[in-house]
Amino acid sequence: MTDSKVTELNLPMVDPLPEDIQKYFDICDEKLGLVPNVLKAYAFDMEKLRPFMAMYNELMLGESGLSKLEREMIAVVVSSINSCWYCQVAHGAAVRELSGNPKLGEAMVMNWRAAELDPRQHAMLHFAERITKASSETTEEDRDALRAVGFTDRDIWDIAATVGFFSMSNRMASAVGMKPNDEYHGQNR
Amino acid sequence: MTDSKVTELNLPMVDPLPEDIQKYFDICDEKLGLVPNVLKAYAFDMEKLRPFMAMYNELMLGESGLSKLEREMIAVVVSSINSCWYCQVAHGAAVRELSGNPKLGEAMVMNWRAAELDPRQHAMLHFAERITKASSETTEEDRDALRAVGFTDRDIWDIAATVGFFSMSNRMASAVGMKPNDEYHGQNR
Amino acid sequence: MTDSKVTELNLPMVDPLPEDIQKYFDICDEKLGLVPNVLKAYAFDMEKLRPFMAMYNELMLGESGLSKLEREMIAVVVSSINSCWYCQVAHGAAVRELSGNPKLGEAMVMNWRAAELDPRQHAMLHFAERITKASSETTEEDRDALRAVGFTDRDIWDIAATVGFFSMSNRMASAVGMKPNDEYHGQNR
Amino acid sequence: MTDSKVTELNLPMVDPLPEDIQKYFDICDEKLGLVPNVLKAYAFDMEKLRPFMAMYNELMLGESGLSKLEREMIAVVVSSINSCWYCQVAHGAAVRELSGNPKLGEAMVMNWRAAELDPRQHAMLHFAERITKASSETTEEDRDALRAVGFTDRDIWDIAATVGFFSMSNRMASAVGMKPNDEYHGQNR
Amino acid sequence: MTDSKVTELNLPMVDPLPEDIQKYFDICDEKLGLVPNVLKAYAFDMEKLRPFMAMYNELMLGESGLSKLEREMIAVVVSSINSCWYCQVAHGAAVRELSGNPKLGEAMVMNWRAAELDPRQHAMLHFAERITKASSETTEEDRDALRAVGFTDRDIWDIAATVGFFSMSNRMASAVGMKPNDEYHGQNR
Amino acid sequence: MTDSKVTELNLPMVDPLPEDIQKYFDICDEKLGLVPNVLKAYAFDMEKLRPFMAMYNELMLGESGLSKLEREMIAVVVSSINSCWYCQVAHGAAVRELSGNPKLGEAMVMNWRAAELDPRQHAMLHFAERITKASSETTEEDRDALRAVGFTDRDIWDIAATVGFFSMSNRMASAVGMKPNDEYHGQNR
Repeated sequence: MTDSKVTELNLPMVDPLPEDIQKYFDICDEKLGLVPNVLKAYAFDMEKLRPFMAMYNELMLGESGLSKLEREMIAVVVSSINSCWYCQVAHGAAVRELSGNPKLGEAMVMNWRAAELDPRQHAMLHFAERITKASSETTEEDRDALRAVGFTDRDIWDIAATVGFFSMSNRMASAVGMKPNDEYHGQNR
Repeated sequence: MTDSKVTELNLPMVDPLPEDIQKYFDICDEKLGLVPNVLKAYAFDMEKLRPFMAMYNELMLGESGLSKLEREMIAVVVSSINSCWYCQVAHGAAVRELSGNPKLGEAMVMNWRAAELDPRQHAMLHFAERITKASSETTEEDRDALRAVGFTDRDIWDIAATVGFFSMSNRMASAVGMKPNDEYHGQNR
Repeated sequence: MTDSKVTELNLPMVDPLPEDIQKYFDICDEKLGLVPNVLKAYAFDMEKLRPFMAMYNELMLGESGLSKLEREMIAVVVSSINSCWYCQVAHGAAVRELSGNPKLGEAMVMNWRAAELDPRQHAMLHFAERITKASSETTEEDRDALRAVGFTDRDIWDIAATVGFFSMSNRMASAVGMKPNDEYHGQNR
Repeated sequence: MTDSKVTELNLPMVDPLPEDIQKYFDICDEKLGLVPNVLKAYAFDMEKLRPFMAMYNELMLGESGLSKLEREMIAVVVSSINSCWYCQVAHGAAVRELSGNPKLGEAMVMNWRAAELDPRQHAMLHFAERITKASSETTEEDRDALRAVGFTDRDIWDIAATVGFFSMSNRMASAVGMKPNDEYHGQNR
Repeated sequence: MTDSKVTELNLPMVDPLPEDIQKYFDICDEKLGLVPNVLKAYAFDMEKLRPFMAMYNELMLGESGLSKLEREMIAVVVSSINSCWYCQVAHGAAVRELSGNPKLGEAMVMNWRAAELDPRQHAMLHFAERITKASSETTEEDRDALRAVGFTDRDIWDIAATVGFFSMSNRMASAVGMKPNDEYHGQNR
Repeated sequence: MTDSKVTELNLPMVDPLPEDIQKYFDICDEKLGLVPNVLKAYAFDMEKLRPFMAMYNELMLGESGLSKLEREMIAVVVSSINSCWYCQVAHGAAVRELSGNPKLGEAMVMNWRAAELDPRQHAMLHFAERITKASSETTEEDRDALRAVGFTDRDIWDIAATVGFFSMSNRMASAVGMKPNDEYHGQNR
């Protein structure tokens, strides 16, 4: 856990980590076999790490009308449009794991239109792509297209928030040269 | 503070708000003359509002090698590229207030190259534009260009984080149809 | 009126100006409190200034099925797409003045879709955006969409001519580094 | 000269034309073998036709440090980027005529980089392309690159003005569906 | 036939050419008055020339539900989008020759929407443009739009294959600086 | 080998296949464990299949100053820019196999800049990206940048030809809805 360079910036983790954070990292290590490098990257400043973790956990693991898989699918589609190395690697692995379908993980990375999707998920990813590329052109028609396949207004918020979060993370990761943990590549293939 | 529609989604604020949040909103009202609509928009779910507020406050108001004005300049430049109505209005007002220079606020909205900037701020906004538009092409040369004008690695993180945050907020605001408070328009002109 | 640098080119105004032009500038000064810098910029050569003034005055102030405000709205939307500093400043002020609605001026600069528009004006700005970005793809259906909301063929000409004029002015202003008069910034806020 | 449809708009020429305009059209017919359709298109309103003619004649035929051929080369390069049917046909013919080099006319339409150009003309067309595509990013370095190959500030104005004029004309022609005179196609091949 | 520089690469034709290839070149010379430079460019290696010739001849001259003219129209539209000097010159000439309509050749180069096309050819070129620009977004609806105007699945293959072939040739020609034979420019004007 | 739908077009393989082709397919099956669907897709017409196979085999397997791995790297980078599902899957597998480095295969798909490359391969992929996106802007400087890292003119041809070939294949595959063999996904992970 002390490997030095998870980004191209010289910003080492605080040492020692606060107890609760160290504990959290230990649990990651135990359950995932790794501590995601993004957490290590933010760990040079607890004031930055804590809100990032809180937002991430609520968004990707909290209550939602979107399944965890669906949120990961959005994560990868956004990251593919932005060609983010870190996020495609890490969240591509998550899609493979949560779906048990390696091909689905590949399709989210390579071209989401190639995946076999039901109309609900197709509408979700179509909206995600649109918000990623041209959010300022969003209209009520775009939101209504989501409502028409069964998404609630709360779900629409969650789709937008997931697109937003990875629009942020992609830029952070690329701007600082963040490196994904090697373990992801071979997982759930 | 109970005005109903700050977005196009039907997601009313929790009522009553938790005491600490209500207090925070009261302070906003007192100091700014308004509660920013973005906070009201997130206030349908405290699990979403709290990390957003924590991240925002650390990023825009916390310790940094970037001045608060510089962070707001980045916010507006990113929001201008993404044509985000909410964020250009709200953060354009912040640039005008913090700089005492209405023309600078306009330039961040309209074309940052038109502003009179020192080499440090020019490099900062050049990098911000580049990360906003094509983050995946970032190279060590881009980071070195920031170091060359005096930014530390921690500052580079903060520039990237500010770009990232507004890449998120712009998409959220546009995707849900967020409306800025009317008060911003006339402030500090 | 003899301030030297309204562009980055070394092209001083003819001195003295022809009598009629001097008179026109004096009237500007009296009525607007300024002589628009674009006129001073062209004033190094009367052969260039006169047709520019004639075309501008007919287009923006002459008879038309479009109101003067509508023509200014188009001017700002085109200038926003082209990120033209001069034209957004000067014509943004004109939208604020003619509409008495500072928010409308901001919306034309920041994202015209955020403005509350009737179907006629929405169609007009949609067409303006389209012609600005991809004129070669214009079809009869595009023109019919304007006819459907009540525009005559003459009005369509005027919309196109306004888009065209600012497609020209934006490039001129940016190419030569034209500076807007400072007075515009605070007007009609 | 009374052929009805030079555009897709129903805007017939005033009839009879004012004497001086009729005379001008007659001279065109005599010298060029045609009256350019763009003039007929504007001829539904003398208030629009006259400034257009004045601006065009000064720009393309008046005194300038740019040769007439160079101005026509710029016209075609801009029109090619904008895929304007009318202007590529009409001004492509002009390049062929003025240069006596049909291949040069083709290259301006198809890919200006394929033409054999001296450094001065290369810099001129490079600047023209840049202003056409991204005028808001123009910097003093761009202008200095023109000065370095011998262009005066007045010449820079003329290059920008030619780019600007055809940025306008291209949009007008495409927006109204203007048709070029058939005679151009075979000229000077 | 031994003119040295048909590209910017120093890759001379094998000398002597194999008998059958020499014969083929002689026939070209006899029938077309030239040996297309693209063949000379590939002729530095028979292993490269033969499959190129075989693919080209099958595609452009073989059996198909598309007329030879239609295939050439696609060739030019694709080459125009890619601004390929070589292919626009050579295949623009082919469109003029096969159609006996110089104006059609020009329209394919300058803006295919300006040509008078029946619905079948309009759909064909619309699809060609779409595949050239954004092939990954192709859907069954796009293919159905071709079927609706009478194209068979085999024809759809041929349209796609023609787009694909020139997407290849355009990049080859531009990457190596291929020069078209001068004879093309004046043909069939 | 008679599975019906490798594309969205109804173009079944000729049955029986010519003896030599059947033999080739059998060898594929034996050595690769599959017959690539692209070959089955072309097998509705031997006139189309044979030149495709000949060109492919020469390009990707023949003599070249580029290693087979380098050619596959180019294939994937081009296919990633074009978001081609078929080619990213099939050639991503090839990169993993030839390099023995699954991470390299992922990087070619996700963001080639994230791969650890020597200057030669970096220059090669930079050129490949440039030709894929904007071939018409290629200059002698671009070719000289390849020569500077040791590529011969013949190598430059091969780089361009590989980019060209996949610019074709990507469009073919996407236009007809080609499906990659499922076996590729798990290979060499």
